[in-house]
Amino acid sequence: SPLQDIECAINQEYSIHCKRDENANEVYVPFSFLRQYFDVSGAVTTGGSSGSEAAKFNWMHSNAKVNLPKGKYDPRGVFMYFENYNVEVRDRVKCISAAEGVPVSTQWEKRGYFYPTQIAQFALAHYSKNLTEQTPRIHILEDADSNQMEWNTPKTSNMTRIWHHKFNTSIVQFETTIGYESAISIQLNQTQDLVLSVDLLLVTNSSSLMVTVLNRDTKHSYNLHYLAAELLLSVQESNIYYGLGAGSLNKWRHITRDLHIDLQKGIVMGDKRSPLKVRRSDLEVLSIAFLGIGFYDNITLSTSDHLAHFYDAAEWFVHNQDMKTGGWTNPVRRSLNGFAELRPGWISAMGQGHAISVLARAYWHSGGDMRYLKAASLGLQPYRIYSRDGGVLAQFMDKYYWYEEYPTTPASYVLNGFIYSLLGLYDLNSTAPGKIAREAGKLFAQGMHSLKKMLLLYDTGSGTSYDLRHLSLGVAPNLARWDYHATHVNQLLLLATIDSDPLIAQTAERWKGYMFGKRAKHN
Amino acid sequence: SPLQDIECAINQEYSIHCKRDENANEVYVPFSFLRQYFDVSGAVTTGGSSGSEAAKFNWMHSNAKVNLPKGKYDPRGVFMYFENYNVEVRDRVKCISAAEGVPVSTQWEKRGYFYPTQIAQFALAHYSKNLTEQTPRIHILEDADSNQMEWNTPKTSNMTRIWHHKFNTSIVQFETTIGYESAISIQLNQTQDLVLSVDLLLVTNSSSLMVTVLNRDTKHSYNLHYLAAELLLSVQESNIYYGLGAGSLNKWRHITRDLHIDLQKGIVMGDKRSPLKVRRSDLEVLSIAFLGIGFYDNITLSTSDHLAHFYDAAEWFVHNQDMKTGGWTNPVRRSLNGFAELRPGWISAMGQGHAISVLARAYWHSGGDMRYLKAASLGLQPYRIYSRDGGVLAQFMDKYYWYEEYPTTPASYVLNGFIYSLLGLYDLNSTAPGKIAREAGKLFAQGMHSLKKMLLLYDTGSGTSYDLRHLSLGVAPNLARWDYHATHVNQLLLLATIDSDPLIAQTAERWKGYMFGKRAKHN
Ligand SMILES: [Ca+2]
Ligand SMILES: [Ca+2]
Repeated sequence: SPLQDIECAINQEYSIHCKRDENANEVYVPFSFLRQYFDVSGAVTTGGSSGSEAAKFNWMHSNAKVNLPKGKYDPRGVFMYFENYNVEVRDRVKCISAAEGVPVSTQWEKRGYFYPTQIAQFALAHYSKNLTEQTPRIHILEDADSNQMEWNTPKTSNMTRIWHHKFNTSIVQFETTIGYESAISIQLNQTQDLVLSVDLLLVTNSSSLMVTVLNRDTKHSYNLHYLAAELLLSVQESNIYYGLGAGSLNKWRHITRDLHIDLQKGIVMGDKRSPLKVRRSDLEVLSIAFLGIGFYDNITLSTSDHLAHFYDAAEWFVHNQDMKTGGWTNPVRRSLNGFAELRPGWISAMGQGHAISVLARAYWHSGGDMRYLKAASLGLQPYRIYSRDGGVLAQFMDKYYWYEEYPTTPASYVLNGFIYSLLGLYDLNSTAPGKIAREAGKLFAQGMHSLKKMLLLYDTGSGTSYDLRHLSLGVAPNLARWDYHATHVNQLLLLATIDSDPLIAQTAERWKGYMFGKRAKHN
Repeated sequence: SPLQDIECAINQEYSIHCKRDENANEVYVPFSFLRQYFDVSGAVTTGGSSGSEAAKFNWMHSNAKVNLPKGKYDPRGVFMYFENYNVEVRDRVKCISAAEGVPVSTQWEKRGYFYPTQIAQFALAHYSKNLTEQTPRIHILEDADSNQMEWNTPKTSNMTRIWHHKFNTSIVQFETTIGYESAISIQLNQTQDLVLSVDLLLVTNSSSLMVTVLNRDTKHSYNLHYLAAELLLSVQESNIYYGLGAGSLNKWRHITRDLHIDLQKGIVMGDKRSPLKVRRSDLEVLSIAFLGIGFYDNITLSTSDHLAHFYDAAEWFVHNQDMKTGGWTNPVRRSLNGFAELRPGWISAMGQGHAISVLARAYWHSGGDMRYLKAASLGLQPYRIYSRDGGVLAQFMDKYYWYEEYPTTPASYVLNGFIYSLLGLYDLNSTAPGKIAREAGKLFAQGMHSLKKMLLLYDTGSGTSYDLRHLSLGVAPNLARWDYHATHVNQLLLLATIDSDPLIAQTAERWKGYMFGKRAKHN
């Protein structure tokens, strides 16, 4: 029997159109209403490769994904499931600084700034990808030794392979006039392997490296310029300029650039309204050229060079730490609704923890480079200083110590940031020697104690809250959207591999169930 | 266009049958699924007195009811919205004890016991009804003075009106042999006014008062016997026996009985499987009879006698207080899932608070009867004693004092019971003189401070939790079902009339919104 129309009064407040099957004593409610009312997802799909199977409606309580740990968490191994992260492609990453080799964020300030948490995620993603991805293909284009190419050298220019006594290898010396027609260059038709690596020393500030890349889809080509200049990113039509920093003159630099990322960020910069989205597989490297006066060696194009990115970031943390406080400061204002604004210079426990996770891995992977260990150790300091005194420490109900992702007044107790701050401590405890390990271990134990006592404060019976601002400010709970909730679950699943307290594993399981609509019971 | 059938996969776990309107790009989900999945309610109604209007589906996020306070809460007035309570009709009330005039609970022990919280609710309901209902109709049947009836007096029996010097009024003296045929009696045909009141003194333990009541619907009549015996309730076919207590002999007792309740509870006792539900409007009092040796005066039948019930309960609290601890003890085991079992003799902050609310009103209403004040004052003691030491006091995170409805180990922090315990303190603070008012006021202020600091712990963003067992035990939150959630809302709305902190009123409004599906925002 056909269904009848029936008006449905929602809580006596407003009406929607429903359908009724009077015989079956059933009322049917439109999903478009349910989607908004309950914040659930769903879509009609047709199965089979040809779409020949019957249409089906997929009701998804949550679209977020749970990542099951593959084994016991190893501080020398993959960081959580960060092998899935692609920090540099995010919209809120303006570009990868050519001077530093780390991402520049626009999340809270449009002009761009170095955001320690993001830089660390970039590092941890690349460290993890290095462990999980296939060994990259590496094309050595020119090393002035066994791999040499035919460089197109205009008359007024000069290129010579010379022996470098200190490096104990041959390098290329070049000298050209100003103007791109005088550049020395090689022609290529390289696809897929788009990560350029080169050892480079520029002598004058009008010297540069230029890479020409073709978008085979649009037939449009772009010039990526890497200059010895104090410049982040600048675009003029098809020319995209990255600065290597004013301090880069007459210094050997090992530069690793993902040309796809550099191109895409340049395109966005040049057309903020509707930037073209470039597919990696459409790109082809047409040429590499040098201009001005300088030296180079070891030009490669690879599918990836994750460790290079990782170490670029590790170096950033070594060189950008406040030596007095041990903090990696955030140079932007941060306003959390209801809290006093954080002024530029604030420190995040999440940033500290992430940085320590990076540095602990760098210390271990480098075979014991003490610079990384020292920076990591100094990075513990803010964990012991209250937020009001410039640190990241809070205390819940005068009882439990908490490391604050945002050192707000009053405290905000963001859960996921706290757990990341604990992972940093765990990583250092597991990799550092003696006293530093013990210091990190003590802070970790203190935090885990708080976590176990406070974890259930975040449990709403059908999801989690992102922080405890409702308790600090007396306002509505700031519920975690599903992807943050999934982060909570993923973090607990990981912690359960290193802490056998059943509270962790049981809570993780229950919270996972919430993602499938399995609410806690009511009385 | 007709709707098509479409399979709907719920979270990739199981499938249900939905309907699809392909043209409108809409999928319709059966409400029978939504009811269970989201715990919402709904029903088809047809409007108009004749059912002639179009059918309509009423979606109800919650079936519970919010009670808006009519004005500032007055400790001398109605207790919350308890004028709507009908404690004695509840299934878990076995009967009203004829010895005490208060309900006997079977909630946690089938044989029946005195449950202070329930007795107080009974008292507060009647106190409130007395203020909100119409003045009752009172039929004075016999006062041996201006109202006299023709009593049917068998030959072997005797009834005389005599002057009682001490009472300064005439009373009836009666003497009959054993056997109901010798009883002195009056015939009546009284409907509607079913609350019997009498001053009675029985001299021998074979003496009794018997009331015959007809169910005009079934044409069946019942004899309600009130005996001078240690007996709660006993039934033999149509004879229902209530005991006035062994100690009732040779003592004047003022007895107030709701004959409808006494009859209904007797019927349930006689047929537990499928007891007849008797309508009040179907009942007719056919006769009142006395047997044995005794005296009586002031027989009345009224529509109600709320104050009599109220004072019966107030007296119960005066006579059933543990003089050492100040507690009204619960003589039953109480097991809360996950907590150590409470052993018989435990005290409830809710019971204490409710009792104090009763006694404060009795003190005020009686014009200052010190017995009520003393009992109320002594009832404060358990508020200062930790649960582990026999009191009801807990401390949250070593910081905030809490009065426990259930003095569990670890603490359970039941919210609604705590707020009721505060109302008792407020009532005593408002009605008692000097030092006692100050003591109650201090405990109230301490509790309100905790409430404000802890209130948001119960806020799940879409409802409330009933207690904090998730924090104490590390388990799933014990979500409040909608009627408990409504109680939370009602309590906050009431508190907002006596405490101007916006936290109370704002939280009440938000929690009210949850009942209409208005969730807190996610980030
Ligand atoms: Ca070389
Ligand atoms: Ca009289």
